[in-house]
Amino acid sequence: MPFDNIELFPYSADINDRDRLTIGGCDTVDLADEFGTPLLVFDDATLRGMCRQFVDAFGSRYPNSRVLYASKAFVNAGIAKIVAEEGLGLDVVSGGELAVAVAAGSDMTSVYFHGNNKTPEELEYALEVGCGRIVVDSFYELNLLNDIAARRGVIQSILLRLSPSVDPHTHVHTTTGILDSKFGFSIETGDSTHAIRQALAASNLDLLGLHFHLGSPIFELEPYSIAIDTVLTYLAQFKDEGLNMREFSPGGGFAIGYVRDQLPPAIDDYAEVITNAFTRRCEDLGFGQPTLLLEPGRSIVGRAGVALYTVGAIKQIPTVRKYVSVDGGMGDNIRPALYGSEYEAVLASRMSAESSELVTLAGKYCESGDVLVRDIEMPTLESGDIIAIPSSGAYAPSMASNYNLNGRPAIVVVSDGEAQLIRRRENFEDMMALDVV
Amino acid sequence: MPFDNIELFPYSADINDRDRLTIGGCDTVDLADEFGTPLLVFDDATLRGMCRQFVDAFGSRYPNSRVLYASKAFVNAGIAKIVAEEGLGLDVVSGGELAVAVAAGSDMTSVYFHGNNKTPEELEYALEVGCGRIVVDSFYELNLLNDIAARRGVIQSILLRLSPSVDPHTHVHTTTGILDSKFGFSIETGDSTHAIRQALAASNLDLLGLHFHLGSPIFELEPYSIAIDTVLTYLAQFKDEGLNMREFSPGGGFAIGYVRDQLPPAIDDYAEVITNAFTRRCEDLGFGQPTLLLEPGRSIVGRAGVALYTVGAIKQIPTVRKYVSVDGGMGDNIRPALYGSEYEAVLASRMSAESSELVTLAGKYCESGDVLVRDIEMPTLESGDIIAIPSSGAYAPSMASNYNLNGRPAIVVVSDGEAQLIRRRENFEDMMALDVV
Repeated sequence: MPFDNIELFPYSADINDRDRLTIGGCDTVDLADEFGTPLLVFDDATLRGMCRQFVDAFGSRYPNSRVLYASKAFVNAGIAKIVAEEGLGLDVVSGGELAVAVAAGSDMTSVYFHGNNKTPEELEYALEVGCGRIVVDSFYELNLLNDIAARRGVIQSILLRLSPSVDPHTHVHTTTGILDSKFGFSIETGDSTHAIRQALAASNLDLLGLHFHLGSPIFELEPYSIAIDTVLTYLAQFKDEGLNMREFSPGGGFAIGYVRDQLPPAIDDYAEVITNAFTRRCEDLGFGQPTLLLEPGRSIVGRAGVALYTVGAIKQIPTVRKYVSVDGGMGDNIRPALYGSEYEAVLASRMSAESSELVTLAGKYCESGDVLVRDIEMPTLESGDIIAIPSSGAYAPSMASNYNLNGRPAIVVVSDGEAQLIRRRENFEDMMALDVV
Repeated sequence: MPFDNIELFPYSADINDRDRLTIGGCDTVDLADEFGTPLLVFDDATLRGMCRQFVDAFGSRYPNSRVLYASKAFVNAGIAKIVAEEGLGLDVVSGGELAVAVAAGSDMTSVYFHGNNKTPEELEYALEVGCGRIVVDSFYELNLLNDIAARRGVIQSILLRLSPSVDPHTHVHTTTGILDSKFGFSIETGDSTHAIRQALAASNLDLLGLHFHLGSPIFELEPYSIAIDTVLTYLAQFKDEGLNMREFSPGGGFAIGYVRDQLPPAIDDYAEVITNAFTRRCEDLGFGQPTLLLEPGRSIVGRAGVALYTVGAIKQIPTVRKYVSVDGGMGDNIRPALYGSEYEAVLASRMSAESSELVTLAGKYCESGDVLVRDIEMPTLESGDIIAIPSSGAYAPSMASNYNLNGRPAIVVVSDGEAQLIRRRENFEDMMALDVV
C-alpha cells in the first residue's frame, strides 16, 4: 500500500519516482502546473469502475436491475457521457440537469425527473424533450402534470415518490424519508393511498411504479431492507385496484469514505441486502419481477474526484492552532461549513514526508467558517506545496459558488497518463457575463 | 404603518390598491410576471439612503471619515456604480471583486484589497490595475508583496490587518477578530509587532495604517470601542519607530434586521461609539486625525434587497408541519442552511390577508435542509402566490450556487416605478458555458 489513506483515493492513485501523488498515471503537481489550482481531478478508471460495480453487484443478483446516475452529485456533459457509456440511466432534479442530459445526447427513455417542486416550466420542458419518467412528488404536481400531458395529447410514464417514515440516521439536512419531510407522499398519513388512486385514475398518466429515498449518505444496511419491506407490503393492497408495478426504486444514498475511520459498506453488501429484501417480498406478495432502480450519485463520483490546492499563507498561533491557507475553500467545497463534513488530505508534492504537526487547512474566503480540514496531522507544509483532498468529486463541485467572486475550479478527467479538460476554470469575465450594465 | 414587519423591508416598501407589495413604486407581482422568479429586487432609494446614512453619520462626527462598500456582501458593476455615485470607496477580497471594480470604472485609489490568502496572481493583478491599498494579512503576503512591488519598481500603500482578540458575539463562522482566527496578525502573540516593524522597514511598501475586523453581523456596540481602545493603545509604541498612521479601519460588520424581534442599533449609534472611541484615543495618544475607514457591506445592500418567489407544491402533514415549497431555496440563499439564519416573509400578492397558520417555507432543492423559513405564521397560501422575503440583499446573492443546476436569479434595481435589470437570469446554456465537451 503506497500510503496509508489510499482507500479514500481513486483506484489509480499511486506515488511516482518524484515522490508525488499520481492519479490516472498523471503527476498531480504537473496537473496543478498545467491547469492551475484549485483543480478537481476525476479518475476515469474509478468513475467507470464504480458504474460497473453497481451494474454488476445488482445485475448479478437481480438481472432486471437498472442503475441511474444521480446527477445532483455532479454532472456536466462529460460526466453524463461517461456514465451513459457504462450503461447507466440518469436521475435529474431540475430543468438544468435535464438540459445537460439533452446536451450529452442521453437516451431520454432512461432519464428520471425527481424533485419536490418542479415548476410548470420544468414539466413542460420535460415533456417537450421526451423525459422517460417523471417521479411525481405532490398532489400539486400530479394534477399539473396530468393537465400538461392531456394538453399535449400524451400519456406520461410516472413513478410516485413515497415517504416511508424510516430514519436512515444521517445528517438532519439530508434525511428525506421520515414523516417530517418536504418530499413525497406519506404512507403514514394516508396521502400515498390517495395519490396512488388518483394516479391510477389519471387520464394522461401511466403509473409505472414507486420510489422512495431515505437520505444520504447512508452507512447502515438495515434501513434499506426495512423500508423495502414496509413499502412493498403497503403496496400489495393496490394490486386489486389496478396497480401494475413495473418499476420500483429504493433510491440511493450509498455512502463513500471521507475519512479513513468511517468507511462505507461494500457495494456488494448494499446489493445483497436490497436485492434480497426486494426479491423475497416481491415473491411473497406476487409482484413478479419489476425493474429494480438504483440511484447512486455520490458513490459514483465521490471517490473518483480529488481536489488539488496550492498552499499560500501559513500562520502559527502559539498554543492555539496553525492555519495553513490554500487557494480554494468554501466556494469550491462548502460541505465542511454546511454539514461539518470531515475530509483528509495529503501533501501531493512530497508524499513520503512524515506527518509532523497538527494543522488546520483553511480556505481563502473571508469567513472564519471557511476551513476545509480542521486539526489534521500533516508534514511541515510550505507555501507553494500542493495539497490533495480525496473524496471531493460529489456535491463539492455541484454546490460550488462564486462567493468572494472567486472563479470555480477547472475540472479534468485523467486516464493512462493523459488529462482531458471537461470544464475550464471560471474567469473574471465569466463571473460578469450575466451583468447588464 | 402599512404592515407590521415593514422595518425589515426597503424604505420605499408599500402596498398598492391591488393589495400587493410595492418596492420603488413597482408592483412586486408585476415584477415577478415580467422577470420571472426567483427574483432579487434592490431598492435604489435604500441602497443610496444607506450609503448616505453612513457617510453622514460618520462624516458629521468625524469629518475625516471614508466609507468603503464591502463588496463581498454582493457586488456587480451595477451596484459598484451606485455606491461610487454616493461617494463610497470599495473593499474587495479577491481578484474577481477587483475586476468588477475595474469594469465599473471605480476610482482605484479608493479600492482596498483584503483577504487572508491573496494569491501571487491576485497581488500582481492588484498592482497592475493600481489598486489603492492592499490590506496585508500575513508575513507570507508581506514578503511576497514587497517583492512584487520591488520588481515593478513601485511603492505600494498598505494597511496591516491586526487581530485584537476581541469577541463580538456573533456566529462562530463569522467571528474573525479573536485569537483563534486565520485572519490578521495577532497582537496577543506578538506577531503584529514583528509585522509592523517589517512593514516599516520594507523597501517597497508604505504602511499607511492598520485595520481590524471583529466579525459580522455585530449587534453590540461595546466590542467596537473596546477593540479601538485596545488597538490604538497598542499602536502608540510604534510612533517612535516611525509609524505615521494616516488611516485606521475598525472594519465593518454592522448588523441589519432579518427578523422583527432582533433589530440592529441605528447607524448613528454605531457612529457615535466608534467616532467617540477613536477621537478620544487619537487625542490621548497624539495620533492626530487619521482617516477613519468604515466598511459596511451587509448594511448597505441587505435591507435594500427583497427576494420574490412563486409558491408551488403545498404539503400538509397532519400534526407535524405544512410545507409550502417555492421555486428557489438554498441555491439562491444558503444562509438558513449554513448559519441557521432566520428570515421573515410576506404574501406579496395579498398583503392584507391575515395570518392564519404556521407553515414552513421550503425550497425546490433536493435536500431536507433546503428550508428558507421554518415555522412562520402566514395567510393560507396557494400555488401561484408570490412570497417576498426581506433582508435578502446581502450574502444570499454573493453565495448563490448552481446546485441542482438551477440557474441563479435575475436581479433588478427599482426606482420611481421603473425596474432596471442589472443581472439577467442564468439559463441552461450559461450553466454549461464552461464545459469542454
